[in-house]
Amino acid sequence: MTMMTAEQYEESLRRLNLVVYMFGKRVENVVDDPIIRPSMNAVAKTYELAHRPEHEDIMTATSHITGNKINRFTHIHQSIEDLVKKSKMGRLLGRETGCCFQRCVGMDALNALSIVCFDIDAKHGTEYYKRFVKYLEYVQENDFTVDGAMTDPKGDRSLPPHKQPDPDQFMHVVEEKKDGIVVRGAKAHQTGAVNSHEIIIMPTLSMREEDKDYAISFALPSDAEGITYIMGRQSCDTRKLEGGAMDQGNLLFGGHEALVVFDDVFVPWDRVFMFKEYEFSRQLVEQFAAYHRQSYACKVGVGDVLIGAAQTAAEYNGVEKASHIRDKIVEMNHLNETLYCGCIACASEGHKEASGTYCVNILLANVHKHNVTRFPYEISRLAQDIAGGLMVTLPSEKDLQSPETAKWLKKYFEANHDIPTEHRMHILRLIENLTLGTAATNYLTESMHGAGSPQAQRIMISRRINMQEKQRAAKKLCGIE
Amino acid sequence: MTMMTAEQYEESLRRLNLVVYMFGKRVENVVDDPIIRPSMNAVAKTYELAHRPEHEDIMTATSHITGNKINRFTHIHQSIEDLVKKSKMGRLLGRETGCCFQRCVGMDALNALSIVCFDIDAKHGTEYYKRFVKYLEYVQENDFTVDGAMTDPKGDRSLPPHKQPDPDQFMHVVEEKKDGIVVRGAKAHQTGAVNSHEIIIMPTLSMREEDKDYAISFALPSDAEGITYIMGRQSCDTRKLEGGAMDQGNLLFGGHEALVVFDDVFVPWDRVFMFKEYEFSRQLVEQFAAYHRQSYACKVGVGDVLIGAAQTAAEYNGVEKASHIRDKIVEMNHLNETLYCGCIACASEGHKEASGTYCVNILLANVHKHNVTRFPYEISRLAQDIAGGLMVTLPSEKDLQSPETAKWLKKYFEANHDIPTEHRMHILRLIENLTLGTAATNYLTESMHGAGSPQAQRIMISRRINMQEKQRAAKKLCGIE
Amino acid sequence: MTMMTAEQYEESLRRLNLVVYMFGKRVENVVDDPIIRPSMNAVAKTYELAHRPEHEDIMTATSHITGNKINRFTHIHQSIEDLVKKSKMGRLLGRETGCCFQRCVGMDALNALSIVCFDIDAKHGTEYYKRFVKYLEYVQENDFTVDGAMTDPKGDRSLPPHKQPDPDQFMHVVEEKKDGIVVRGAKAHQTGAVNSHEIIIMPTLSMREEDKDYAISFALPSDAEGITYIMGRQSCDTRKLEGGAMDQGNLLFGGHEALVVFDDVFVPWDRVFMFKEYEFSRQLVEQFAAYHRQSYACKVGVGDVLIGAAQTAAEYNGVEKASHIRDKIVEMNHLNETLYCGCIACASEGHKEASGTYCVNILLANVHKHNVTRFPYEISRLAQDIAGGLMVTLPSEKDLQSPETAKWLKKYFEANHDIPTEHRMHILRLIENLTLGTAATNYLTESMHGAGSPQAQRIMISRRINMQEKQRAAKKLCGIE
Amino acid sequence: MTMMTAEQYEESLRRLNLVVYMFGKRVENVVDDPIIRPSMNAVAKTYELAHRPEHEDIMTATSHITGNKINRFTHIHQSIEDLVKKSKMGRLLGRETGCCFQRCVGMDALNALSIVCFDIDAKHGTEYYKRFVKYLEYVQENDFTVDGAMTDPKGDRSLPPHKQPDPDQFMHVVEEKKDGIVVRGAKAHQTGAVNSHEIIIMPTLSMREEDKDYAISFALPSDAEGITYIMGRQSCDTRKLEGGAMDQGNLLFGGHEALVVFDDVFVPWDRVFMFKEYEFSRQLVEQFAAYHRQSYACKVGVGDVLIGAAQTAAEYNGVEKASHIRDKIVEMNHLNETLYCGCIACASEGHKEASGTYCVNILLANVHKHNVTRFPYEISRLAQDIAGGLMVTLPSEKDLQSPETAKWLKKYFEANHDIPTEHRMHILRLIENLTLGTAATNYLTESMHGAGSPQAQRIMISRRINMQEKQRAAKKLCGIE
Repeated sequence: MTMMTAEQYEESLRRLNLVVYMFGKRVENVVDDPIIRPSMNAVAKTYELAHRPEHEDIMTATSHITGNKINRFTHIHQSIEDLVKKSKMGRLLGRETGCCFQRCVGMDALNALSIVCFDIDAKHGTEYYKRFVKYLEYVQENDFTVDGAMTDPKGDRSLPPHKQPDPDQFMHVVEEKKDGIVVRGAKAHQTGAVNSHEIIIMPTLSMREEDKDYAISFALPSDAEGITYIMGRQSCDTRKLEGGAMDQGNLLFGGHEALVVFDDVFVPWDRVFMFKEYEFSRQLVEQFAAYHRQSYACKVGVGDVLIGAAQTAAEYNGVEKASHIRDKIVEMNHLNETLYCGCIACASEGHKEASGTYCVNILLANVHKHNVTRFPYEISRLAQDIAGGLMVTLPSEKDLQSPETAKWLKKYFEANHDIPTEHRMHILRLIENLTLGTAATNYLTESMHGAGSPQAQRIMISRRINMQEKQRAAKKLCGIE
Repeated sequence: MTMMTAEQYEESLRRLNLVVYMFGKRVENVVDDPIIRPSMNAVAKTYELAHRPEHEDIMTATSHITGNKINRFTHIHQSIEDLVKKSKMGRLLGRETGCCFQRCVGMDALNALSIVCFDIDAKHGTEYYKRFVKYLEYVQENDFTVDGAMTDPKGDRSLPPHKQPDPDQFMHVVEEKKDGIVVRGAKAHQTGAVNSHEIIIMPTLSMREEDKDYAISFALPSDAEGITYIMGRQSCDTRKLEGGAMDQGNLLFGGHEALVVFDDVFVPWDRVFMFKEYEFSRQLVEQFAAYHRQSYACKVGVGDVLIGAAQTAAEYNGVEKASHIRDKIVEMNHLNETLYCGCIACASEGHKEASGTYCVNILLANVHKHNVTRFPYEISRLAQDIAGGLMVTLPSEKDLQSPETAKWLKKYFEANHDIPTEHRMHILRLIENLTLGTAATNYLTESMHGAGSPQAQRIMISRRINMQEKQRAAKKLCGIE
Repeated sequence: MTMMTAEQYEESLRRLNLVVYMFGKRVENVVDDPIIRPSMNAVAKTYELAHRPEHEDIMTATSHITGNKINRFTHIHQSIEDLVKKSKMGRLLGRETGCCFQRCVGMDALNALSIVCFDIDAKHGTEYYKRFVKYLEYVQENDFTVDGAMTDPKGDRSLPPHKQPDPDQFMHVVEEKKDGIVVRGAKAHQTGAVNSHEIIIMPTLSMREEDKDYAISFALPSDAEGITYIMGRQSCDTRKLEGGAMDQGNLLFGGHEALVVFDDVFVPWDRVFMFKEYEFSRQLVEQFAAYHRQSYACKVGVGDVLIGAAQTAAEYNGVEKASHIRDKIVEMNHLNETLYCGCIACASEGHKEASGTYCVNILLANVHKHNVTRFPYEISRLAQDIAGGLMVTLPSEKDLQSPETAKWLKKYFEANHDIPTEHRMHILRLIENLTLGTAATNYLTESMHGAGSPQAQRIMISRRINMQEKQRAAKKLCGIE
Repeated sequence: MTMMTAEQYEESLRRLNLVVYMFGKRVENVVDDPIIRPSMNAVAKTYELAHRPEHEDIMTATSHITGNKINRFTHIHQSIEDLVKKSKMGRLLGRETGCCFQRCVGMDALNALSIVCFDIDAKHGTEYYKRFVKYLEYVQENDFTVDGAMTDPKGDRSLPPHKQPDPDQFMHVVEEKKDGIVVRGAKAHQTGAVNSHEIIIMPTLSMREEDKDYAISFALPSDAEGITYIMGRQSCDTRKLEGGAMDQGNLLFGGHEALVVFDDVFVPWDRVFMFKEYEFSRQLVEQFAAYHRQSYACKVGVGDVLIGAAQTAAEYNGVEKASHIRDKIVEMNHLNETLYCGCIACASEGHKEASGTYCVNILLANVHKHNVTRFPYEISRLAQDIAGGLMVTLPSEKDLQSPETAKWLKKYFEANHDIPTEHRMHILRLIENLTLGTAATNYLTESMHGAGSPQAQRIMISRRINMQEKQRAAKKLCGIE
């Protein structure tokens, strides 16, 4: 089996033995938990679409190791075209799920490691790349979903890892054994963690020699002994528990984030991809971050959903022909397509690394992500403008079922006689979901902080710009030699 | 009793016999319902602060009818100073409650009627103003909270009231009796409806002669027979049912909106303030809207809370000295104070109407509100930037109480050793509340649509600008005579 | 004579013996120089309008010293109403001149000194205030235009005055005599310098004890011995030399800035208002700056002209009814009136100082000015959008006079048969003037840097915000005690 | 000769016999006219760089007709790579000239015609494509600069061509002869017109059958009998006449626009590429516009110059390390690179047309250009912020040469002892040039209106978005079937 179906994926998750906590209790059945399940559905979509002929070109690739057809999420980019298709895959899945489908982070971790392992070996004569390729083949052949884990809790932000009062604030090695290492620490904000078969750990920032115990990268099965997952909660999360078919907005899909704790977990050597080569930590961080900033192509797809919802709401409200409504729809599209330009351009301007892996243009990937920290907020604001105030004053779907109130809702919330009032309520709940509810945590806040907060991108832009060239040009034109 | 205490206010609500539905069921005890109660608390704050010496100047006024000291929310503005104090009262209460305190809408309705009743009488020789003043005295002496209800469901937006397939889409008179009238219709998005003793109905738009049955204004006790309230739901509303002390963000206050249905309700003549004088409907709409757009002074106060929360989060995160954080805090304040300028300027540039009531500058009130449809979204975006991603990945407070997870949360979410981790969680939940949760529906979406959607303000700006004067000046300077 | 006419003002300037250089040459006749004269015309407007009954209320005041009716530009604000009228006077003159009328800076200097002299005396028992009042009476009785000069060249920005390699980079005292002092230094960017009778010097930043020789304030006749003026040039300045009646855009008015050099100039003691009381330099800077930031009320008036021009251009282009054009006009007005709110609010929220002078609210004055560094640029961008590309591709007015080309211009630039093509050209030249030409240097760049650059306002906003109050409110709401 | 040198280009222009008017007079020597020459220099740069080995890949291509190496400006795009290189060529030349280099418009006309001629033939069995290819070869072999002329004067904007009171407001055929046609009309805003050897005329908008006489496209030598050029003037144009070496800002390059009048000009049939096939006019307009909107890649290069100038000014002012300055530089770069993403993405997402020509993605080309109507204004605003007010108060360079004033300028405008004061003045003049002067007309106003005004792009965005797909996705997610 090289490519799982959505059903096989779900079954494979049932075989995992994850330690997951939510609302202070252990979750016994992760897959069927009503709060978690929509996020599983979203990952499952990455499996389902790979089997659809119309999406085959985007969703699948040919493994450069085995020559097998594989899900693109397990692929190492072999060309500019691969990079561009990755961006298109993100938009496609964002549009089909209306949320975060979680699987890109592992793809980005694999690609970044494929470069850095090679480069470490070239300098140090180590064998990381061989290990990595073997691990990669295992992931590809099993079509695994991989969590790529970078963000440490970080404790006191003014101190480097080795100066922290609590050394566990950054993931580090606590014991070195013959057959592997023991690690301790935690990774925060882990998207899709409990829907993953594997987890790849990377350092969270550029390390210096004093921090070399923290300059480590490795992979683990998600249910390795000593790993605990504590689910984060999202705005409106418990609407999924209400048993209805409207108020959660997006009836099918969602996302999740978790705190992942590593309490002295053993990692065998063949899953260790960086071990104290601190001077490569910055490269790994920057390249993973660049790939992952490209991955915010997905928000273009979520933007598609929100624009489609706003247009539909305008039609249901009977105001879609008003010039200001039309103009706002154009503006939403303009902003959304500007984001699309960013994720296409950073791919199209990519380059080949020594290992053969293609990497995005790092400057443009940062520029793209930086726009993602802005435009979805404005698109969301415009969607709320178009939706109208009813979006936040709408009674519950239970009021639509109760005979005493249903008559009033059906009577007074009808705006267009050809449209059932329920449809108007459905679409407004979707806009609520995307701009205030569970999906807003992804479309807005995760757009802000995922793959690095805005300031991280500004620092990278500052580093990657060739200012000398610009100054040379300016001085020449005005006569300063 | 001219001014109730908060406790008296709560007791007075218990005496009402409101018909309220929520989640498909009748709410038996409105005052103590955990979802509604925080909104009652917010209104109660308007009573409490009126008794505090340090706020007396802002919160109270002297009735121009009785000479008694009254709560400013029942006052008719007698000077520019009164108008300015109204804006300051809004900011004060916004800051103290962090939400919508609901009581301004009745004050705005009373003030608008105090002008329009007088003007109708002047033209038609009617006695509305006398009726109104008597009613006003009743409200002032009882220190009532009044709901001012303007927004009709509106049905097909392309048709005027009298052409609607369902004539009830706009509130109208269905029977004219000797002792009063019978009305039918509904008012949507009614802020604070179930916390009110009285409700004042106004037409929702400018009416023409054909629509004169819809050109009506009147007041009713909130529990008059035939009135039904259907509560709207808000993002994260059910967190208030969880019984905790953290995850709802704002532990004390909230807001609510309801659909209010009038199913053949009788109104005695002495509570009718406009009856088919359709040519005054536009004035009533515009002046009420102008007053109410001024009332968005409250969002400056809510902005204060969000800025204070963001600054606190930055300190708890240990990053408050980073130059980009400081700059974002300045930007938030700059935008918030720009809003403050708007609500002060429209008051300061107010004028006296024929009835003696002072009215805000209508152009500037619209300009102010129009900025309120924009800046809170940007302030909110910046708050999310400063807060960090943890705001949307934070586990529940129950995880902080469970021994299996509490140890990890306390260990890994500590960023500043001097600050209990719980405090960091509290402040992030408040930011979540204001930017995604129950308060976001007010700070963002209601800022967009309350007192009229953005396009309504643009139309008013267009109408109130003296373009000829500007064109005259331009032509003169460039030599076009 | 307490109030000069425009003609008397012009004559009074002819009596001055200023040393002015422009284009490397001494300007013999300053008043009639074609580049300078439009700026003189703009100042003259401040005299002319003071005699017009319809503007009397705004343009004049009653001296609190003599009780005489005086031009408001020489008045010390005695009430909130005075402060508000000052903002309205700025808008009025901005609208009537379409440029910088230069006279506010002296008014702001006089008002700031009226506070600080009083406060220094209160601390040190000095007699500055008496001196100042005598000087003020002299200015009021003669209706002088006064240049208020604050900005020093500043040399190396990283060093305080006393550490500068060249001590003259900040104005300082070089000799102390029995009858006065000798000063040396320069003041840059002096608006309206050569149209002024007097010049008041103030320190440019907060000084410490080591810099006390730089903590000086004094007044001089503008033609005192040792003062040299070097005129700055503006975009399109030489169009005024072309002798036409169209291409300069604004045919009547303009502004100017000059570098003013003080080469060992003697100042008698009765014109010295601060002498080494360095601890008051910060107050003087902040209060002058606040008054002067309020003065950017003028840009609202210039905005009126630009909006009027854009509307006229749209009509001449035949596109004024297009929905996007109307919407852009609304946006321009919205931004312009938002600026108006700022200058009104900082006045309306003013307060009385110990000397009896009313001072604006310093926080809001900074907020106002900060918006002035942004909105005129967007208004200008929208004006260019509405104007169309012809604004920058229009042939010269000489082409309209030449028979070989005039026929083509008249034929092909006609867009509306009822409007002479010349009119279309006139209005486009005015928009060019305001967005690229001589007036753009004032409407845009001076809006950015005049009365302090944006960062100066951000620092003041940061200082004047009560963050503790906001944090207290936030913590209380989320349960942090 | 397939590729001219810059010198050959200049000589070739001397052989033209153009009828050019400026300031009401015939320009006898166009090439050496001091106002026009900088624009010729900019075009010459497109010849010069084509001979530089380091730019060969970008600046040259292989003709698909002859197989010869040609200047890319005469090339028909044969691949995605060609499209991407076109964008890079634009940025390169923008950076090297700091202005509009004018030659892209002809390239865009040639490429659009290469598609449309082919498509007309396919439908009508005509021979336009053969004619066109022959003409193309002539252009390639002679390495001509071609003006692509689309914009008609348009007269009354509410009327189609055939209803205009003056039929010449749109270019039309006035006589049909055996050997060709006679045309009359004008084209406005023609960039680089008098630096061109050839001019290609295209219709300005989508035509209907009644307008078929206006649905014409053809090419003419720029000095064909009956063509008259009337030069437009630019902000600060006459600084080029002052004979200095500083105040014009950009000492080397500039741009120009002209009104081009066609007074019954004869066009032989072999130069006619569309003749009354009105149903193809919309395609020609949209494809030419799309190519030309891509061409605004050049503004990224001009942005590079302005960013380089701002950074240099900051260094010369001694403030480059201030955090707010660094942040503004990042923002300028971020906006500029966002523009770059647009011109790369629309190329990278291009496609092959029936004729074999590659065309850009039309939606994304419009999105790109639409951002160009916004971001340069903000980049310009930030540049003025960083430059400081001295940019608009700087005395003339003659003041730097006069002994009486030079001493003061050198003394008081020194901010950094290691930098000659002249250098500081030079760089500020360049920023003035780009934000207010001759280059601002291109960097700002032409960015707004060139290749279509903002509203034109919004209409195209509206047309090219697949809204149904977005609505389908939204409805599915919220349960509307």
